[in-house]
Amino acid sequence: MLDHRSQCSVMNFLNEVSSTIPSAVSLASGRPSERFFDKLDPQVLLNALVVYERYSAGGHGGGRLLSHLLQYGRTAGIIGELVAQQVRSDEGVPARADRVLITSGCQEALALCLPALCPEAADVLLVCNPTYIGATGAAKAARVAVTALCNSVPCVAEAVELAVLQLRQSGRKARALYLIPDFDNPTGRVLDKASRCDILQVCARNRIIVLEDNPYRLFRYEGDEIPPMAALDEVGSVIYLSTFSKTLSPALRVGAATLPDTIFGDARACRALWENLVQRKSFVSLNTSHITQAIVAGLLIEQAASLRGWIRPALDWYRANRDVMLRQLDSVFSPFPEQIRWNRPSGGFFLSLDLPFRFGADSVDECARRDNVIVMPMSFFALDNSQDCRIRLAFSAVTPKQIRTSVTGLGRYVARRLGRELPSFVDGLAEG
Amino acid sequence: MLDHRSQCSVMNFLNEVSSTIPSAVSLASGRPSERFFDKLDPQVLLNALVVYERYSAGGHGGGRLLSHLLQYGRTAGIIGELVAQQVRSDEGVPARADRVLITSGCQEALALCLPALCPEAADVLLVCNPTYIGATGAAKAARVAVTALCNSVPCVAEAVELAVLQLRQSGRKARALYLIPDFDNPTGRVLDKASRCDILQVCARNRIIVLEDNPYRLFRYEGDEIPPMAALDEVGSVIYLSTFSKTLSPALRVGAATLPDTIFGDARACRALWENLVQRKSFVSLNTSHITQAIVAGLLIEQAASLRGWIRPALDWYRANRDVMLRQLDSVFSPFPEQIRWNRPSGGFFLSLDLPFRFGADSVDECARRDNVIVMPMSFFALDNSQDCRIRLAFSAVTPKQIRTSVTGLGRYVARRLGRELPSFVDGLAEG
Repeated sequence: MLDHRSQCSVMNFLNEVSSTIPSAVSLASGRPSERFFDKLDPQVLLNALVVYERYSAGGHGGGRLLSHLLQYGRTAGIIGELVAQQVRSDEGVPARADRVLITSGCQEALALCLPALCPEAADVLLVCNPTYIGATGAAKAARVAVTALCNSVPCVAEAVELAVLQLRQSGRKARALYLIPDFDNPTGRVLDKASRCDILQVCARNRIIVLEDNPYRLFRYEGDEIPPMAALDEVGSVIYLSTFSKTLSPALRVGAATLPDTIFGDARACRALWENLVQRKSFVSLNTSHITQAIVAGLLIEQAASLRGWIRPALDWYRANRDVMLRQLDSVFSPFPEQIRWNRPSGGFFLSLDLPFRFGADSVDECARRDNVIVMPMSFFALDNSQDCRIRLAFSAVTPKQIRTSVTGLGRYVARRLGRELPSFVDGLAEG
Repeated sequence: MLDHRSQCSVMNFLNEVSSTIPSAVSLASGRPSERFFDKLDPQVLLNALVVYERYSAGGHGGGRLLSHLLQYGRTAGIIGELVAQQVRSDEGVPARADRVLITSGCQEALALCLPALCPEAADVLLVCNPTYIGATGAAKAARVAVTALCNSVPCVAEAVELAVLQLRQSGRKARALYLIPDFDNPTGRVLDKASRCDILQVCARNRIIVLEDNPYRLFRYEGDEIPPMAALDEVGSVIYLSTFSKTLSPALRVGAATLPDTIFGDARACRALWENLVQRKSFVSLNTSHITQAIVAGLLIEQAASLRGWIRPALDWYRANRDVMLRQLDSVFSPFPEQIRWNRPSGGFFLSLDLPFRFGADSVDECARRDNVIVMPMSFFALDNSQDCRIRLAFSAVTPKQIRTSVTGLGRYVARRLGRELPSFVDGLAEG
C-alpha cells in the first residue's frame, strides 16, 4: 500500500527504473501501443480539422479555420452531439448531447465529478481495492474521503451495502462509487450483467452515484458484450466517463462525462449537477481546447460516429498480445501450478497475477536489474496491504517477442524467490 | 456583489442578453479580437506541428508525427524550454525551463496553485477588489478562503499588511496574493514599480506567495515597461502565470506557471511545491495536450521565442481601439464632467468607468435593450458592494465604429438615468 504522495510517485519510480535499466522490458505501462499512431500523421490531423470546420459551417467551409474555433468557447464543449452519437453507437450508452460534458481527458471528468458529488466532509467515495490511481488521487487532491470496498464479501454489491452501513455508524455517507466494469485497470476483471444490476440496485437504494469509467470497453477480444451500467440504469444513477485516449490518442486530451436524464428521478437535481460540473470546469480549464475537440470531431465525422473500424487493427494486435502473454504464462509457470495464478481477461490491456510472496518496490528493482522485466506491484493501486502479493501485467505497449522474453524473465525471478530453478525448457520459450 | 453561483453565471447572463438583443454591441467581452486568427489557419497549425517535430527530433524529422508526441507524456509538459525562453525574452521574467509547469491554459495554473498554497482551512488567498472572476472562482471550487484587500487604505502593500493583521486576529493566515499588475482585469490599472517593490517586501515579511497573472503584459500601447514582480523578486516569492490565449489563441489552452528558484530562500520548499503542483496536475489533466503544446512550440521556434512581432498588428489594433474609446468617452461624457470618470490605461483590453448611480444586472438589460450596448457591471467582479457604481468597458473585441456607437448608446443611457438629455451633437459622434 502506498500513501498519497507515494501513489503519485509511481510513474516517477517506474521511469527511474526504466532509465536506469533501459534494456528491461516494461510490462508496467498500460499505454496504448504507438504502432497505430501512424494513422494520425499531421496531414490526417489537418484534414480532421478541415472536415469539422466544413461540418460546423454547414458544408460551406473555406480553407480557413472558423474564427470562433480559435476563440474562447462553450465550457461544456462544442462536439457534444458527435460524442453522444459515438457513445451511443459504440458503447451502447443512451447519451443525449445536452448531457455530454466534454473534458480535457477523462481525468478531468473525475476531478470535476468527485468534489461535485462529495461536497461535504462526511461524504465518501467508494472504490474497489485495488483501483485506478487516478481516481483515488483525484479524490485526495479534491479532499474527498475514500473508502475501499471490502474484498472478503463475495460481490461488489454486498461490499457496497456493507460500506454504507459501516460509514453510517461513523456519521458518514457514501455518495459515489467509482468502477471500471469492463476490463478493469488494474485487475482486468469484468463485472457480469447480474453483478452490474445488483450494484445499481444497491446504489439506487442508497442514493449513490456510480461513476462508470470505461476506457477499455471497445477492446473486447471475444465473447458477448455486457451492457454498460449506464445502459442498465433505470433510475438515473450512472455518470458515464469515456475517453478518446485509448481509441485515438492520449495526446488529444479529450474525454467526456455523460450524465443521465435525471438523478434518481429528479430532473432538477440533474440540472443542478450539470451546472455544478460546468461551473467547476470553468474554474479548472475554461473549456477543452477547440483544436483537439475539432480533430476528434473531424475523425468522428469521417468514421460515421463509430470508432470500431478505426481501432480494429489495434484490437487485433492487443488480442494477439494477450494470447501470447497467456500462452507464455502457461508455459513458464507450469512448474508452479498452485502457487502462481492469473486471470484470463477477455479484453483490455491488463491481467493480474498472484504470487506466493510479497512483491514491492524492491522487487521491481531487482526484477528489472537481474531479469530485465519491469512489472507493476498491485500494492501500488491498493488502499491496504491486501494486494501485496499480486502484480499487474500490461500487454498493450509491448511486442509479442518482448512479452515472451519478459514473462520468461519474470519466471526466472519467481523461481529464484521461491528458491527453485526454472526448468531449462522455459528459456527456450523466450525465443519462440 | 455576486455570490459564488452568480459569479459563475455572469457569462450565461451576458450570453443571454446578447442572444435576446443580437443588435447590441458588447463592450462586456474581454476576448482577443478574432481578426488576427487568420494567421492561424489550419496549414499554419500543421506547419507548426511539423516544425516542432523536426526540432524535437534534432532536425531529423520525417513527414510523420513522432510517436511519442501522440502518447501520454510528462506531466509538467514537453515545451518548458521554449516557454522559458519566451517568458524571459518577452516578459522579462528570469524563467528556468525546469521551473516551468505547462498548464491547460492559465486557468488550470490557478486551479493547481491555490489549493497547493492554501492547504489548511485557516489559509487565505488575498485578492484585490474587484478582481478576475476566474481567480475567486478557482479558490471557491478548491475550497480556499478568499479575503478582499481593503480599498480604503492608500496602496496595495498597506492593504496586504492590514489584511494579514486582521486575519491573524481570527487565527487565519494569508498564504497567497493574486495580482494582475499590468493592465488589470477588470480595472485596467497598472501597478508602478515602487508599489510592486512595496508589495514584494510586505509579502516576503509575511511569507505570502504572489501569484502574478500577466495575460495583458505584452499589450502595452505606450510608455516604459515596468518590470514584472517576478523580475523584482529577490527572495523567491513570486509564481508567474503566463498564457498564450491572448497572444496566439485561446483555443490552444496552453499556459504556464513559472516558479522561482527558491521559496523564501528555501530550495527544498520550492522543490516540494513543484512536486505538489505536478502531482495535482496529474490528477486534474495528466498532461496538457501534446498537440497544442507542439503547435505553440512550433510557432515559438519560428518566431525565435518572441511573440512581439507576431502580436504587433493586434497591438496596433487594440491601441487604436483604446484611443477611439477614450476620444468617444471624452466627447460623449463632456456634459457630465464631474459625475462620470474613467481611467486611461496604457495597455490591456479594459478600462473602468465610475457612475453616479448603481449599475447592476437590470441596468445591463435596459442598456442593451434601449441603447444597444452591453457593458459589464464592476460588481460582477467584486467581493462587496463597493463596486456597485462602476462598469468595465472592453475595447478588444469590437471595431472602432462599434465603439463609437456603443459609447454613444451608453451616454444616452447615463443621461436618461440622470434625468437629463444627451446634447444632440453627441449622436453625430456615433457616425464619426
